[in-house]
Amino acid sequence: MSVSIIGLGKIGTAIISHLLVLGEEVRVWNRSPAAVETMVALGAVPLSDVRDAFTSELVLSILFDDAAVREVITHEAIASATGRDTLHVCLSTLSPSLADELAMAHRSAGLGYLSAPLFGRPEAVEQKAANICVAGDPILIERARACLESFGRVWAVGDEPRQANVAKLCGNFLIGAAVAAMAEATSILSAENADADAFMNLMTETLFASPIYKNYAPSVTGARPLPASGLALPIKDMGLLTTIAAQSQSSSRLLKALCDSLSRAQELGFGAQDWSTALGRSARIASAV
Amino acid sequence: MSVSIIGLGKIGTAIISHLLVLGEEVRVWNRSPAAVETMVALGAVPLSDVRDAFTSELVLSILFDDAAVREVITHEAIASATGRDTLHVCLSTLSPSLADELAMAHRSAGLGYLSAPLFGRPEAVEQKAANICVAGDPILIERARACLESFGRVWAVGDEPRQANVAKLCGNFLIGAAVAAMAEATSILSAENADADAFMNLMTETLFASPIYKNYAPSVTGARPLPASGLALPIKDMGLLTTIAAQSQSSSRLLKALCDSLSRAQELGFGAQDWSTALGRSARIASAV
Repeated sequence: MSVSIIGLGKIGTAIISHLLVLGEEVRVWNRSPAAVETMVALGAVPLSDVRDAFTSELVLSILFDDAAVREVITHEAIASATGRDTLHVCLSTLSPSLADELAMAHRSAGLGYLSAPLFGRPEAVEQKAANICVAGDPILIERARACLESFGRVWAVGDEPRQANVAKLCGNFLIGAAVAAMAEATSILSAENADADAFMNLMTETLFASPIYKNYAPSVTGARPLPASGLALPIKDMGLLTTIAAQSQSSSRLLKALCDSLSRAQELGFGAQDWSTALGRSARIASAV
Repeated sequence: MSVSIIGLGKIGTAIISHLLVLGEEVRVWNRSPAAVETMVALGAVPLSDVRDAFTSELVLSILFDDAAVREVITHEAIASATGRDTLHVCLSTLSPSLADELAMAHRSAGLGYLSAPLFGRPEAVEQKAANICVAGDPILIERARACLESFGRVWAVGDEPRQANVAKLCGNFLIGAAVAAMAEATSILSAENADADAFMNLMTETLFASPIYKNYAPSVTGARPLPASGLALPIKDMGLLTTIAAQSQSSSRLLKALCDSLSRAQELGFGAQDWSTALGRSARIASAV
């Protein structure tokens, strides 16, 4: 099977390495040429035009955000492959509305499309331990499965591509709610002069012994802050999810409280920090609701 | 060391069995006599008056709630032991204000007092796997440690007894926030016709692979509801924590959202159910906010 990869960031290059080991023909396209040369040295075939990627049986794209996808995966590029039996699996974390738009453009051109946002950092992809949240036609999911399983575990959540993008936002919401709850609980304990870190140790070694709580708790309390990554992305994601919840009149009290807490943290000047540090510091500034 | 146990519910009797194996003299008191007879058959010494419990070096009490503690551990019972070197470790889940009151009454009588609410069901205590959240004078904690470690792990969170009671409420809040966030996320996914159970499987086997999420997720989605336990206790606990947060002007947006969601679930007629079932069902009733 011929596979094309669009986007040679850390995750894209990690995927290519796995596919080359499997002996697949891997064709690569990237905006900047340096990453292409590295991959060609490993055995990949360079593409000079992104449209050529869509002549492969399978196209994996892994680009930064909506804007990058709109720039690279143009309607014109998709239409150029009309009539081919191409399947495009979009691994980027995109808005559900862009996923809808892409699904429609591919359908019009007779191509297959799946949304498959990843949970997992580049190191997880290197270790074949990514978690790939997929949605779209089940037959297409089976066509892509072997390739996707070369770098992670496949979790199908629905048959409409956008459902995977909503699921990715919901996953981020569960993380944000956990972080915001830890921020409130530990700020109450700190105000009581109790040992908030000892409390979080108890929690993260027992009831909440999972990666998210273990990773974020010391950053929330300030014991070991995570590297600054900024509130812009979480605020954007939670805003998107709020719109989606409103469309279906779904319950969203906690989501609203999380959005308000993020805005408050930004107002307090913590906009450049990781959300765990920002929500933790903001909660410790006594000011009620 | 002589130990008295006040309260022979499932947890009390499990603790006594461990202490008897250690060869301690264990004296027991209970409101109803049947449980006393069972423990006497195992080698415990029955007490006819709760005041006699306070003549032991160590007293462990494990009673149902504030009301039961007020009825049994009277100021008169505490005062009767004035001048003895008794240490009372209260394992019940109490309000922080009752913990303050008990701490003061013991101090007036010259007795030691620790708050040590348990995380863990009776089976955990049977398996010596309880998690005991302790606060009070560190010297007293060391005096109680060997006895407490006969049935679980000791986590010290502060040197004022009430801090352990606040920590227990904060632990319950982390659980409630996790449950409410799962309810909102999975109701959004259900409204999108996505597979909410598949999404929660992804989450609980990766980022949120911890007892709380694994245990509650299938109940939130309705796939495997937990036994009905009612909203009265969680509503009471979260109300207590709200008062505590307000006293220190701590941030409590998520806590308020959780309280509102619990009230809403009760209004919808789910007051008898477990909070996971109630919040899940309530969130799936489309009605926004």
